[in-house]
Amino acid sequence: MIVRGAGAIGATAAYGLAQGAQMFQGNGIKTFEKHMAKVYRTLAYARPTAIDPVNAMEMMLSKMNGLTVENRKLQALALAERFADDDVAHCQAIGDIGENLIQDGTRILTHCNAGWLAFVDYGSATAPIYTAQSRNKKFHVFCSETRPRSQGAALTAWELAQQGISHNIIADNASGHLMQRGEIDMVIVGSDRTLGRTGEVTNKIGTYTKAVLAKRHNIPFYVAIPLSTIDWNLKSGLEIPIEERSSDEVLRAWGISDKGSRQSVTVANPKSTARNPSFDVTPPELITGIISPVGIIKPRQLWKYRAKLGYKDLK
Amino acid sequence: MIVRGAGAIGATAAYGLAQGAQMFQGNGIKTFEKHMAKVYRTLAYARPTAIDPVNAMEMMLSKMNGLTVENRKLQALALAERFADDDVAHCQAIGDIGENLIQDGTRILTHCNAGWLAFVDYGSATAPIYTAQSRNKKFHVFCSETRPRSQGAALTAWELAQQGISHNIIADNASGHLMQRGEIDMVIVGSDRTLGRTGEVTNKIGTYTKAVLAKRHNIPFYVAIPLSTIDWNLKSGLEIPIEERSSDEVLRAWGISDKGSRQSVTVANPKSTARNPSFDVTPPELITGIISPVGIIKPRQLWKYRAKLGYKDLK
Repeated sequence: MIVRGAGAIGATAAYGLAQGAQMFQGNGIKTFEKHMAKVYRTLAYARPTAIDPVNAMEMMLSKMNGLTVENRKLQALALAERFADDDVAHCQAIGDIGENLIQDGTRILTHCNAGWLAFVDYGSATAPIYTAQSRNKKFHVFCSETRPRSQGAALTAWELAQQGISHNIIADNASGHLMQRGEIDMVIVGSDRTLGRTGEVTNKIGTYTKAVLAKRHNIPFYVAIPLSTIDWNLKSGLEIPIEERSSDEVLRAWGISDKGSRQSVTVANPKSTARNPSFDVTPPELITGIISPVGIIKPRQLWKYRAKLGYKDLK
Repeated sequence: MIVRGAGAIGATAAYGLAQGAQMFQGNGIKTFEKHMAKVYRTLAYARPTAIDPVNAMEMMLSKMNGLTVENRKLQALALAERFADDDVAHCQAIGDIGENLIQDGTRILTHCNAGWLAFVDYGSATAPIYTAQSRNKKFHVFCSETRPRSQGAALTAWELAQQGISHNIIADNASGHLMQRGEIDMVIVGSDRTLGRTGEVTNKIGTYTKAVLAKRHNIPFYVAIPLSTIDWNLKSGLEIPIEERSSDEVLRAWGISDKGSRQSVTVANPKSTARNPSFDVTPPELITGIISPVGIIKPRQLWKYRAKLGYKDLK
């Protein structure tokens, strides 16, 4: 968890694969490929729910095919840089496209952190927010805390404060009440893996709950994703591995003490144990639109747009 | 917040009113009534969302009418004791009635703490759980953490551990995912104020969200309440005052440090502010049944049952 966030872990895996290639000391393509397969597995399994690392590395390996070992080493670094540049370009495009959804006075709910701390730059869910602000629109953002790791309260709120954007933190429990009282106009979240064949969206635990609430209140629910977050293979959200993290994350809370040091406190009965699924899957019928770098797409239409999204050979 | 929980603050208000009566030093019924009106207001407004304190004190004042000052003082203490005894009897009856809903293998979700720490004894939402256990049923309870004050993780989980009941704590964000994956069979929560005329249920923030999720997944959603939790006056949930507590509760988490001392840490961006509505209102169409001391009642039928519930003169 030193690196987190879809785009950031994708870029980290890309540079990790490039670094793994540089470190190869042996001889021969076969030995090199065996070495790279090991590097790939290590990086792919570090965060099982996310697809960005896999997509980044698959793209790189496919473009390294047929080259000599030395050229593959050089190519790997160039491809990692291209992945990171693409991530920035995708997030900028998401900002341009999604910005139209935000008007003066819009009250936006977001969950977890899909901001520039989670990507190479701009962020996905936050890109429309930052672009809207750069065009002088005045709006308000509610950051859902996102227990157990508090990415909404700690990271998104910090980003928004740095950018001078009006916002409040809320407990994860409060979004239903605020929607019921008419205080939220739209929801924008990111994604760790979106299924290109079904339109199902995997994202931080609690996202599904917000989508169900938004549907009940007829509030538009958008998911912003760069192309590297699309999984074109899986045929059902039930196949997505949901990372179960340690019980301790739920039993404790991490923060800053009054003396300024990083510290955790036990907030639960210490002899109890916690279940800690860290992601959930939102079905397409709850999603108003996927804000992609090429436009806003209905989640069930992603497959139809695969050529336009750069994957024309998919079957 | 030294005393919390519907029944417990009701009993505290009852004993508080009795103590207020004992402290009266003046002369004459008029001066006494003026003094008591002040005591009443102080106790009633300490927690604006809850109705138990108001119901307890109204019951007491109505039965003190027409007596001398000295007899009112004596009567007040007897009535406070009766309120506390009734709370215990109601919770026992809720346990007997609600226990039938729990079978071997049932996986129950509860939110916040409506256990014996919140009442004089047994609790409301937990009473069926404790009765089921006393009858040797084997089941499992998920305690939703209940940010920002973590009553589910700290209090309900502690109660269940004391009673030796199988349980897990989950982040508030996780209940939707567990319902979606078929891991929750029923929800039982308590209430701070249930409207007798409409069947709307006010309870800890996050309750409404769980009711919306339960409805989507066809999971029965029950609310367990002693009679003192019913508000027979209000005609709409929008009239219920929703206590907004301090921003700091959301920005921080309170717990026990590794050195064993009570401590808080800042879990959010410290320069941001939080909105902190502490209760929400669940409409009757999301509630399978109200587990009352006289039986399980459809929320919209409460008014029809008012005579059976002991309020035959209501119009």
